[in-house]
Amino acid sequence: MAGIYQHIAGGVTAPLGFRSSAVACGIKKPGAPKLDLAVIATDLPSVTTGVFTTNRIKAAPVRVCQNHLRSNDIRAVIANSGNANCCTGAQGICDAKAMCATTAEGLGIRDRQVLVASTGIIGKPMPMDRILPRIPEVIGSLSEKGGPAFAEAIMTSDTRPKCDAIEVKVGTKIIRIGAAAKGAGMICPHMATMLCFITTDARIGKAELDRAMREAVDLSFNRISVDGDMSTNDSVIVMANGAAGGNRLKNGSRAAREFREALAWLMLRMAKLIVRDGERVTKYVEVAVRGARTHEAAKKVARAVATSTLVKCAWNGSDPNWGRIIHAIGYSGVAIREETIDIYFDGLVAAKGGVAAETPLEELLKVAANPAFTVTIDLHQGDEEYRVYTSDLSPEYADFNREEYSALKNTAKK
Amino acid sequence: MAGIYQHIAGGVTAPLGFRSSAVACGIKKPGAPKLDLAVIATDLPSVTTGVFTTNRIKAAPVRVCQNHLRSNDIRAVIANSGNANCCTGAQGICDAKAMCATTAEGLGIRDRQVLVASTGIIGKPMPMDRILPRIPEVIGSLSEKGGPAFAEAIMTSDTRPKCDAIEVKVGTKIIRIGAAAKGAGMICPHMATMLCFITTDARIGKAELDRAMREAVDLSFNRISVDGDMSTNDSVIVMANGAAGGNRLKNGSRAAREFREALAWLMLRMAKLIVRDGERVTKYVEVAVRGARTHEAAKKVARAVATSTLVKCAWNGSDPNWGRIIHAIGYSGVAIREETIDIYFDGLVAAKGGVAAETPLEELLKVAANPAFTVTIDLHQGDEEYRVYTSDLSPEYADFNREEYSALKNTAKK
Repeated sequence: MAGIYQHIAGGVTAPLGFRSSAVACGIKKPGAPKLDLAVIATDLPSVTTGVFTTNRIKAAPVRVCQNHLRSNDIRAVIANSGNANCCTGAQGICDAKAMCATTAEGLGIRDRQVLVASTGIIGKPMPMDRILPRIPEVIGSLSEKGGPAFAEAIMTSDTRPKCDAIEVKVGTKIIRIGAAAKGAGMICPHMATMLCFITTDARIGKAELDRAMREAVDLSFNRISVDGDMSTNDSVIVMANGAAGGNRLKNGSRAAREFREALAWLMLRMAKLIVRDGERVTKYVEVAVRGARTHEAAKKVARAVATSTLVKCAWNGSDPNWGRIIHAIGYSGVAIREETIDIYFDGLVAAKGGVAAETPLEELLKVAANPAFTVTIDLHQGDEEYRVYTSDLSPEYADFNREEYSALKNTAKK
Repeated sequence: MAGIYQHIAGGVTAPLGFRSSAVACGIKKPGAPKLDLAVIATDLPSVTTGVFTTNRIKAAPVRVCQNHLRSNDIRAVIANSGNANCCTGAQGICDAKAMCATTAEGLGIRDRQVLVASTGIIGKPMPMDRILPRIPEVIGSLSEKGGPAFAEAIMTSDTRPKCDAIEVKVGTKIIRIGAAAKGAGMICPHMATMLCFITTDARIGKAELDRAMREAVDLSFNRISVDGDMSTNDSVIVMANGAAGGNRLKNGSRAAREFREALAWLMLRMAKLIVRDGERVTKYVEVAVRGARTHEAAKKVARAVATSTLVKCAWNGSDPNWGRIIHAIGYSGVAIREETIDIYFDGLVAAKGGVAAETPLEELLKVAANPAFTVTIDLHQGDEEYRVYTSDLSPEYADFNREEYSALKNTAKK
């Protein structure tokens, strides 16, 4: 995991054999010049896996993906921003399927070889009249340079596209892994849709890819979410087309491990980009818990702290307030002992044994004023650790989230 | 529960045989004229019960109360605002005990007959040099008109004192119940200390009082808290001195039921006052879930909705956003079916069967613009119900909570 990887340009089209493109078809706002519909495709037989929201309310595209992933050889993904196609009933399912079918038709493949992802407002019918007619154009302009445009087309309240790719030696073979993601919303979100599309030209079997993806998600995206809660549309999709050639990565081999590490590294990088670009985020904070009795206890404590509204407000104010932190630890559900808890801001001890430490407040204030810092919590009860990647909560965030109904107005039926 | 009760003046000193008083001793700010230290006392043998925070981090006064409540015949409570005496180590316990001891000395009773409560900043030593010398003065000025001053002295970021009393016929006897409470902080708080002191001149045994209090707390204060999380200092204390005379209320009798109902009614009233006066609250919202398979399921759904940051931000913006609500229902952990969910704003249906209803948005916007409304969620899965009392989340709340470190500065050790 600690490896330094070679970054390369191109995002999801950096790996061999992938093409992408995007158009602005006015899903967000009719006539707006913003890219909002995009496709990734490969001509090679590919192995694909995905993890999706655990929310009981699942958007139509998530349901369609889960269905299509039962078959093998996915060749394309179509994605849109501006509308989540969620809480749209049976019509929503039809619409998601129509997006797959039209894409499949353009590519000359079967409907079930296409996945679909949507992000945006909930409860609003998809403007299919603006989407379907444009799909042939998207397909017609697929290009090996289309990766960055894809990343741009999936943005919602993101302030910048999230796109990266790495080149890595796996066994004796050089392979590439590319990624595009979107997040925003509040980090540790109850509702921000998180989408991440990964492409790789590694040659790998379904079981091994599945295992690598689950491990990587657990080390990355699962550490920026609340209580494992996910939005109605969250999706992580990994496509491997084997274009790099060579032998298939074998379960248990060094090459397979190297692939897993690289995938996890890239996913964690995308997860961190999402946190840093959260809605109205001014601070990037890592919460590192150590000395826990169990992994689960470390996780509970880290999440309680990272999701406390009051803790996050204090961070926004550059306040090294350990009182609010220890309070969140207290309600985490873990049998902690107040008297053994130490809390640090970066290297500086703020609380020792549950009471104020000797560190002058001025020094702690300096750390909390930084745009990024780590809060370390040592429970002194065992050897288990957990780390969460999170952010502050700003008045601007609350203000920003008051205002969705202007968009909702369009959905009102007369 | 539906009964209308006769309100009377006097708060905690409305019941016969209780006296109270308060002084400004500069705990919040040296020299400030704000009341911040107060006592309630009775000369009669009394029956007292309490429920306290479930947070693993318990403030020193909570620990001392739990210990003192093992003995009978509590005669007094001393409370202060401005400092929570929490995360203050062994010194904090000594300080809380010293407050009891000094109060006991002034009243000529034993230390263990005094309870203590503190609210305010965490992690800061108690300014005992300003507290102890003033206790004799508080005791000297105890009066049957002191109830309102007590309610004022326990305020922190509350904008108004919360004080009420009712007169009620219990069996054939007229009795009185008085209350003082403080809340603020965010409602559904992870951290707002909630204190409530109830006095009554009813004649009641310990077991029956305990039962009545637990039932009342479950119907009131537990419905404004997050996940049952409570602050480090939360305390509800009920003292019954029997001054109204008559027979002791018997378990199972009509009089006992009438007493329980009146107590629950008053506690719910105090709980609602706390929500309405939450930090920077502009909307009072009741979340009513019905049609759940189990009581627990109804509770989970109601709490998920009432504690969703995004839902609360939307309410602040007068946005009847049912998409965010159904999303929170989706991650509540309850096996709901999207297709059977209806959501109402007051009487107006916003979503029917999981999709947008026909109600014109203009009408829904009118309801959401009100300072108080009810969101009703019908799951159509069973007959169980639950109701939570909550509020919006404002940009001003987030702003307000950035700024604690000015107070924290006083705690820094050089």
